[in-house]
Amino acid sequence: MPTNSSSPHLPFGENKNAEWYGKDIISVKQFKREDLEYIFGVAHEMRGMVERVGTFDLLKGKILANLFYEPSTRTSSSFTAAMERLGGSVIPINEVKYSSVTKGETLTDTVRTLECYADVIVLRHPETGSAAIAAKAMRKPLINAGDGAGEHPTQALLDAFTIREELKHFDNLTVTMLGDLKYGRTVHSLARLLSLFDVKLNYVSPDILKMPKEVMDEVKEKGISQNEFSSLDKVLPETDVLYVTRVQKERFENADEYEKVKGAYVIDPAIMQAAKQKMIVMHPLPRVTEISMDFDDDPRAAYFRQMEYGLYVRMALLAMVLGKA
Amino acid sequence: MPTNSSSPHLPFGENKNAEWYGKDIISVKQFKREDLEYIFGVAHEMRGMVERVGTFDLLKGKILANLFYEPSTRTSSSFTAAMERLGGSVIPINEVKYSSVTKGETLTDTVRTLECYADVIVLRHPETGSAAIAAKAMRKPLINAGDGAGEHPTQALLDAFTIREELKHFDNLTVTMLGDLKYGRTVHSLARLLSLFDVKLNYVSPDILKMPKEVMDEVKEKGISQNEFSSLDKVLPETDVLYVTRVQKERFENADEYEKVKGAYVIDPAIMQAAKQKMIVMHPLPRVTEISMDFDDDPRAAYFRQMEYGLYVRMALLAMVLGKA
Amino acid sequence: MPTNSSSPHLPFGENKNAEWYGKDIISVKQFKREDLEYIFGVAHEMRGMVERVGTFDLLKGKILANLFYEPSTRTSSSFTAAMERLGGSVIPINEVKYSSVTKGETLTDTVRTLECYADVIVLRHPETGSAAIAAKAMRKPLINAGDGAGEHPTQALLDAFTIREELKHFDNLTVTMLGDLKYGRTVHSLARLLSLFDVKLNYVSPDILKMPKEVMDEVKEKGISQNEFSSLDKVLPETDVLYVTRVQKERFENADEYEKVKGAYVIDPAIMQAAKQKMIVMHPLPRVTEISMDFDDDPRAAYFRQMEYGLYVRMALLAMVLGKA
Repeated sequence: MPTNSSSPHLPFGENKNAEWYGKDIISVKQFKREDLEYIFGVAHEMRGMVERVGTFDLLKGKILANLFYEPSTRTSSSFTAAMERLGGSVIPINEVKYSSVTKGETLTDTVRTLECYADVIVLRHPETGSAAIAAKAMRKPLINAGDGAGEHPTQALLDAFTIREELKHFDNLTVTMLGDLKYGRTVHSLARLLSLFDVKLNYVSPDILKMPKEVMDEVKEKGISQNEFSSLDKVLPETDVLYVTRVQKERFENADEYEKVKGAYVIDPAIMQAAKQKMIVMHPLPRVTEISMDFDDDPRAAYFRQMEYGLYVRMALLAMVLGKA
Repeated sequence: MPTNSSSPHLPFGENKNAEWYGKDIISVKQFKREDLEYIFGVAHEMRGMVERVGTFDLLKGKILANLFYEPSTRTSSSFTAAMERLGGSVIPINEVKYSSVTKGETLTDTVRTLECYADVIVLRHPETGSAAIAAKAMRKPLINAGDGAGEHPTQALLDAFTIREELKHFDNLTVTMLGDLKYGRTVHSLARLLSLFDVKLNYVSPDILKMPKEVMDEVKEKGISQNEFSSLDKVLPETDVLYVTRVQKERFENADEYEKVKGAYVIDPAIMQAAKQKMIVMHPLPRVTEISMDFDDDPRAAYFRQMEYGLYVRMALLAMVLGKA
Repeated sequence: MPTNSSSPHLPFGENKNAEWYGKDIISVKQFKREDLEYIFGVAHEMRGMVERVGTFDLLKGKILANLFYEPSTRTSSSFTAAMERLGGSVIPINEVKYSSVTKGETLTDTVRTLECYADVIVLRHPETGSAAIAAKAMRKPLINAGDGAGEHPTQALLDAFTIREELKHFDNLTVTMLGDLKYGRTVHSLARLLSLFDVKLNYVSPDILKMPKEVMDEVKEKGISQNEFSSLDKVLPETDVLYVTRVQKERFENADEYEKVKGAYVIDPAIMQAAKQKMIVMHPLPRVTEISMDFDDDPRAAYFRQMEYGLYVRMALLAMVLGKA
């Protein structure tokens, strides 16, 4: 929604004084450290409630329009479940390509229509910047569920929340990001978020897939220690959080180059013998071969728990922007 | 449902004496003036309830099968939201092309199956007359959400309800329909509906896209004044409702012809200076360029409010045919 | 779920002692006669509740992930309605082909992710054996909604439940299966299920579409009488249940052969004059021409009632595996 709106159509019947009420969730850049602490506090409460009662009626009567211009089963299902576990309802919109959009309708007209029906919109869209454009046109809150190469803030929040829930704090942690750090949207956002805390960041990647300079510059400004490596060996023993991403063959100019490096970015039980006993391995999923399924039963394998934390973070955000947290 | 049915399978547990209980909504031709007044009265109450409490449990436990043989995000979402705001549930069926229908199943078998699961079916189908055929085979109520070049009665009802809510009455209004009046299903249905009231109708269109004679004949029979124009200039100052539709390039035999006329059917703030201060501009959406986005913030721009009125009309119809209004 | 799991993540807040709690429904082979009697007893109660109140809150707060890798409007809608009539919610996942699966994710990773959000998964998948593989990877219960040429146990259960509801018992019934008995998954499963009761089975089919030997061997082991015929004439008069399936042209090597036999496997009012007055005709639907629509109004035509019984069976199974039956 526009920041200076005197909207006559805020979501129905809410505590309009709540700080997050009616706000949009567009980018990790909008959060300060205290915001994260608040979000994670609410998400932790959501976790407790789900573990105790499964579902509760905090958002009973509220409607989410789940608007996906490109498919993402995982993210879409997670938001649907988040709304349903809060007692709310969902309008699923997964086939936008077949719809009025193909008749030439603008994104802003589409969201202005959907906000006539729903109380909040979750938007997944292939174009960078589209979430901000949509939110500006709307009176009701919008949550960005990924806009192209741009942002996917709820992914970054769930990644950080996973670290908090598993390791209890952020400060003094060594976080090692592994794999494709150039194109991996998730690692960019997570590095930005973590730079609000006192962490140490290691980047391990093939030479052609290094963390972009602009991300490193932003993180550096916050006074965070960052180091780059081409192999995991040196940093694995000190690592508290190993964040794995996939190295895609298509990123390489020739197959030989790919074959040479690929083994260095695969996690399996043998490699993990060099790691601490108390640390976690994360992955945004889907994974292909970059983490061996043989490692799945290791208590340090946190990637499925990570999915569950995503549910709690999305429950928290929905409750917050609807004035119920 | 068949009119003379002694159905053992009406929707569960309802007030079976209610006049609209179990009825189908197939065509605008089924409504008399007093029917419209009743529907609009219920829709107005729905509006009040939504504005006060957002959602309420009038249809708790009822299930809508939302059966769309062709995509229509707007209409499908609107019915879904209508059912959910009344506390009911929805079975979304959007991919019929991939389903048993492709195995050769008839529409009537499909709806007879779905009514085993649901309490009411909303049907969108590309073939004219399909809604009536489906309804005849069913024991439970069906609402036509558009059957090809045939009818889209809930669109016509929401258009008329918009006029009532915005301008408080119909009688003595001057309604000007603009653009493609030949192929525009919405303007045909709206003209028919409005002919039940004491309105004056203006039709402004390119010569090749004039209102069809059969619609004009039907309207004339009701004693309604109708006039045709090729330009908006003369009638805009007296217009209370300007209903805009898109003039599609594809309707013209050669591009030159289209280029010549297209400017005459575009609404923007400059043109609207000639209009009354108290009037409304409507559009069924999606719009492309036929209404400039610069006009969106004008209070006379009613097309997004129109979407909201659509929600209330669909809530009213669902409640009525399920015996709860 | 794995049988020996000490899962910390069973569905939330349930009576964990209930016999079916947390179990998977994978194959008809897992049921003993007393299991069927229990399931049909619960399904019969569900029928009574739906007829009295339509919907009730037995599974309020529970979430079903309805995961369909191939489309099946009928089965998908039936499970959705079953969950909604029990007060639960659904995550509809119909477009798996467009999603992370296409990025190479395994089925087991997908279901392990979805069980982070949902309490139970219903899976439709084109590959034989996939349901068992998925269930083994999961902590929460899975219901097989058809895995390729493999199993479709809820179809078999609803078929058998239809017989019980319509004819009150199984013993001493003559059940005649007609049409394509070679490729028809439903008749294989139904024959297996019915072999737990004291029935007599007739198989009527073209020579090239006979009941497979392995099914007949399994049934024979239970001591059930089976007879094969190429025409319906002889057995129709003694038949209590006529189960019709479609003979597809594509199964024949040349069109002539098909033309020769097809008439022998079509049911219409004339043919049915030779049948008992108290018997039923079933069909898994969709049907094309193998049952004439002229027969639909005959009280013996049970195929639409069969769809309704499917709803009750699926309600029963959902309630059972979630510990609420």
